[in-house]
Amino acid sequence: MRNSSRSNVDPFIVMDVMEAARKAEESGRRIIHMEVGQPGTGAPKGAIKALQKAMEQGALGYTVALGLPELRQRIARLYGEWYNVDLNPERVVVTSGSSGGFLLTFTALFDTGDRIGIGAPGYPSYRQILKALDLVPVDLPTAPENRLQPVPADIAGMDLAGLMVASPANPTGTMLDHASMGALIEAAQAQGAAFISDEIYHGLEYEAKAVTALELTDECYVINSFSKYFSMTGWRVGWMVVPEDQVRVVERIAQNMFICAPHASQVAALAAMDCKDELQANLDVYRANRALMLKGLPEAGFTNIAPPDGAFYVYADVSDLTDDSLAFAAEILDKAGVAATPGLDFDPARGHKTLRFSYARSTEDIEEGLARLKAFMRERGAQNR
Amino acid sequence: MRNSSRSNVDPFIVMDVMEAARKAEESGRRIIHMEVGQPGTGAPKGAIKALQKAMEQGALGYTVALGLPELRQRIARLYGEWYNVDLNPERVVVTSGSSGGFLLTFTALFDTGDRIGIGAPGYPSYRQILKALDLVPVDLPTAPENRLQPVPADIAGMDLAGLMVASPANPTGTMLDHASMGALIEAAQAQGAAFISDEIYHGLEYEAKAVTALELTDECYVINSFSKYFSMTGWRVGWMVVPEDQVRVVERIAQNMFICAPHASQVAALAAMDCKDELQANLDVYRANRALMLKGLPEAGFTNIAPPDGAFYVYADVSDLTDDSLAFAAEILDKAGVAATPGLDFDPARGHKTLRFSYARSTEDIEEGLARLKAFMRERGAQNR
Repeated sequence: MRNSSRSNVDPFIVMDVMEAARKAEESGRRIIHMEVGQPGTGAPKGAIKALQKAMEQGALGYTVALGLPELRQRIARLYGEWYNVDLNPERVVVTSGSSGGFLLTFTALFDTGDRIGIGAPGYPSYRQILKALDLVPVDLPTAPENRLQPVPADIAGMDLAGLMVASPANPTGTMLDHASMGALIEAAQAQGAAFISDEIYHGLEYEAKAVTALELTDECYVINSFSKYFSMTGWRVGWMVVPEDQVRVVERIAQNMFICAPHASQVAALAAMDCKDELQANLDVYRANRALMLKGLPEAGFTNIAPPDGAFYVYADVSDLTDDSLAFAAEILDKAGVAATPGLDFDPARGHKTLRFSYARSTEDIEEGLARLKAFMRERGAQNR
Repeated sequence: MRNSSRSNVDPFIVMDVMEAARKAEESGRRIIHMEVGQPGTGAPKGAIKALQKAMEQGALGYTVALGLPELRQRIARLYGEWYNVDLNPERVVVTSGSSGGFLLTFTALFDTGDRIGIGAPGYPSYRQILKALDLVPVDLPTAPENRLQPVPADIAGMDLAGLMVASPANPTGTMLDHASMGALIEAAQAQGAAFISDEIYHGLEYEAKAVTALELTDECYVINSFSKYFSMTGWRVGWMVVPEDQVRVVERIAQNMFICAPHASQVAALAAMDCKDELQANLDVYRANRALMLKGLPEAGFTNIAPPDGAFYVYADVSDLTDDSLAFAAEILDKAGVAATPGLDFDPARGHKTLRFSYARSTEDIEEGLARLKAFMRERGAQNR
């Protein structure tokens, strides 16, 4: 059967690593998973409890397209709690994960051929979803001195219809502060580009609080999710905040494209928002893991890393060690039993010399993984000497 | 903020009816809901039980993009049970409802500007999703003598890249038999159009068994869902069956657009497939309701209806009663307290003279609704005489 051109999206290179890791485990080896992009923890207990109760009580049929009103209200309240931003609940749209948010946002804003700027390195699916919608992703190669985040100069004269940023970012964990975010918003708006802020890793920050674009402007789309801080990846529930004049447009698209986000997940998400103790305990684990990574990775020989302000990733420039990150990741998996992600999915042009390490799993795993990495690198260094 | 042209999708006209019904209920009136497109029942008890157990045991993180392997296998087995079709589980893709299936199908197959034929009347979101992807929906006005289903002559010379059929159809409930389906497949393939079969209402049939396109060809996309027969609307889980050479293409799009269907819903869906007794009991209710409708609607004066082979709808031509179905539905709601759907969402050109009645709710509701409709029509007839 004949396929469309738009269907020709790139495969995830990390899948090869994950498949190799799976096979190694099948053969009885213990693999430390530093390639994963999700918490090892499940939804908070309070979320599970609320859903169990709801399942006994009602049919959990379709919700309205914008989401359960009480969930939209609770999300609006979060903006007061986290950022001191007073948010009208009518501007909140519950989505099927941030994935659903991307589809809604790109559809609401962009027409065939429109150019949308995305930072490189960045989340691979931005590029692929844009291509699948016949839009044009424009990679903005970022500089280490800018924390691997785009700056206004990167978009000058780029004729963009949209600019997408992520802070904390995947794969780097770096953040934009007020001034940097504000400068990007201004630069984008000056060229008539819609500003989109992917805030999926908010809540997972270790030094300063992450800045929401809503602190700076109402004229933006904000995309968020219950997957990371709220530890609910598989539930496929997230949210967007859009300008007031965008709500009806997004609602109509959502009615047709999704009908609604999963009802059970919405019930669980609402309860998750009041499970602060458990979520803070998760965060404490990440914080401990991060400290171990910041000490252990350089000791192992991964010295050139982006400042990991948030999320649960460390992005390492390994150009002093290899010019083939895919082969290097395979070597690390084979010899050290540690799975890491080659940078190619995040940055097609420069990812052959980078690796992403995730510290989302248990502290015990991180300790073991770092010990293995140190031993591996010692051995490798001795051989290459 | 500026919106794209593709975002300009039509609002659902039925929403006005639903909002009016909600207001009437708020003011204390009892409304009979014949406008709804979903079962009043929830997921089967066995599905709930399985999920409760799974929630106690695991984190329910992301699944692989194609879905839980055991669910794909169980779905493949269903094709043996229902149609005596031997299906390779590798061809099954678990989706976020049939909505997710449409997005994946249209993206995998069609490029900007491609023309896709859809029967009119038909499910409104076909048209809107196609438009949102910058594809061109081509309405095929169907004839009563063809059970309001397209026939090969309808697509002759239409230069289609795809043809989408639904059997049983929404809003009519009519089905395509082997011969009619086969003729359409042949006609579509003769003009190089991909054949897509929406089989979301399979399992809900009352005279003959619905025919799956897979009985006739492997060269097609089949879209199905757990929403209707399995009574799991709000769970947003469905499936597709695609040709073997399409699996990788669809997998890559799904990885990027959805990551996966909701894990909890996949667990529940797997268990739902073995809840035959409860599902058959639901079906018995629809069967009884349908018999009441087939007797009661003509008695009330709705004599011109499409043969309701399956699903839980009756589509009535009310051109002898009105040329404004929206006003007529509002009148029925106001005077009889029965909510029905004007045909305009399903057939923009001819829906001003049709109504859809759903019989998805309890038999008690159907009896009451029919009694009200009879009284209303008697009164209305007396006034107009």
